[in-house]
Amino acid sequence: MGKHTVTSFDDELGHIDRLIRDMGDLAASMVEAAIRALVNSDVALGQRVISDDAVMDARQRELDDRAITLIAKRQPMAQDLRAVVGAIRMAGDLERIGDLAKNIAKRVGAVGQNAMPRALAHSIETMAAMVLAQITAVVDKYVSRQPEDLQALRLADEQIDVKYTAVFRELLTYMMEDPRNITACTHLLFCAKNLERIGDHVTNIAENAYYVMTGQQLPPNRPKLDETSLTTPAA
Amino acid sequence: MGKHTVTSFDDELGHIDRLIRDMGDLAASMVEAAIRALVNSDVALGQRVISDDAVMDARQRELDDRAITLIAKRQPMAQDLRAVVGAIRMAGDLERIGDLAKNIAKRVGAVGQNAMPRALAHSIETMAAMVLAQITAVVDKYVSRQPEDLQALRLADEQIDVKYTAVFRELLTYMMEDPRNITACTHLLFCAKNLERIGDHVTNIAENAYYVMTGQQLPPNRPKLDETSLTTPAA
Repeated sequence: MGKHTVTSFDDELGHIDRLIRDMGDLAASMVEAAIRALVNSDVALGQRVISDDAVMDARQRELDDRAITLIAKRQPMAQDLRAVVGAIRMAGDLERIGDLAKNIAKRVGAVGQNAMPRALAHSIETMAAMVLAQITAVVDKYVSRQPEDLQALRLADEQIDVKYTAVFRELLTYMMEDPRNITACTHLLFCAKNLERIGDHVTNIAENAYYVMTGQQLPPNRPKLDETSLTTPAA
Repeated sequence: MGKHTVTSFDDELGHIDRLIRDMGDLAASMVEAAIRALVNSDVALGQRVISDDAVMDARQRELDDRAITLIAKRQPMAQDLRAVVGAIRMAGDLERIGDLAKNIAKRVGAVGQNAMPRALAHSIETMAAMVLAQITAVVDKYVSRQPEDLQALRLADEQIDVKYTAVFRELLTYMMEDPRNITACTHLLFCAKNLERIGDHVTNIAENAYYVMTGQQLPPNRPKLDETSLTTPAA
């Protein structure tokens, strides 16, 4: 009010994009740290992830406020409006990724100090690396406006789902081998599921990013490949 | 274009509110049916919930399109803008509730025909009833513009978290008693977790509804009472 607004719509959208980039970087670092904390039983590192989530929430609020102010002030039409609404949605998915990383971090204590079998740690780390690569890639493609690679990114999420199903089965095996593994393994099940869901949020981001850039939808939903719900119960 | 718009902003917002009401009714019926399918091993009913999710997604797209068109066409300021953006967010949470109900429904087959212990079925049904009451209440308070009850609603979510922790422990006990229960119980763990998360989405909706109605935030986040991440592993 009263002051001249000298920034352009594009400047303001650029600022929002930088917030998306920041949130993406933070999401990736939270996921990486949460998994490292989990595999090494590093409760202090887990605590850092938990406190990072407040930073993530603050970033999202800042982005939302800026975006809504931008809509109200500039009253953008069509493509510009799509970009601002798309940014709000992407920020929502990044914030959810932070929540899921925090949830993994909160389980570090419950999984406990019992040495995790090396094979299991490796499986979880491999799955996490796949997810991390996706987070980094989707933010890159969005910020640099490269819609053409987003389809491939969405397909890569299917590999994460396949990996999740394998980790799920691996965890069931450990639980059946020795009931003393059950509590720790149920927490690891939730951790693996959280990684799988982070992959789904990356897919949402890819879809929104594509829509922002092209005004088109990515082709209809890929078939869901999380097949653990088809795992039949041990008789 | 070309046609006169004869409806008022309030008419259009009323239409959006009816979509919120529809989505809320659908969400409640999906949750109710998913739990009934789970407890009775009713795979056909589970399938109905899975197909209902497509209806939910379509409602959300309709609401989003209407809301964004409304912003672009009417260029609302302050309170009106808040109401439209709030509706978009609430629809996002309702859509997520539908997803979580679908995820429960997809596990019906994996949990299998083995008779669920009556005590366990009762616990899950009790938790679901608490969640259902919350969904119905939050949509009622929003549509009838009664902000004063939303705080109590958010507090009731803490009871759901307490119940979730109890169900979690109950499931661990069944798994430890007999390894043949493990696969079914892990799926039930995810079902219980989904109910707990539905409660969190209701809390989000309550917060958004309060903000839409009053322009104020509900007081800062309640402490999280899902304490299963504090459950120590069996040595």
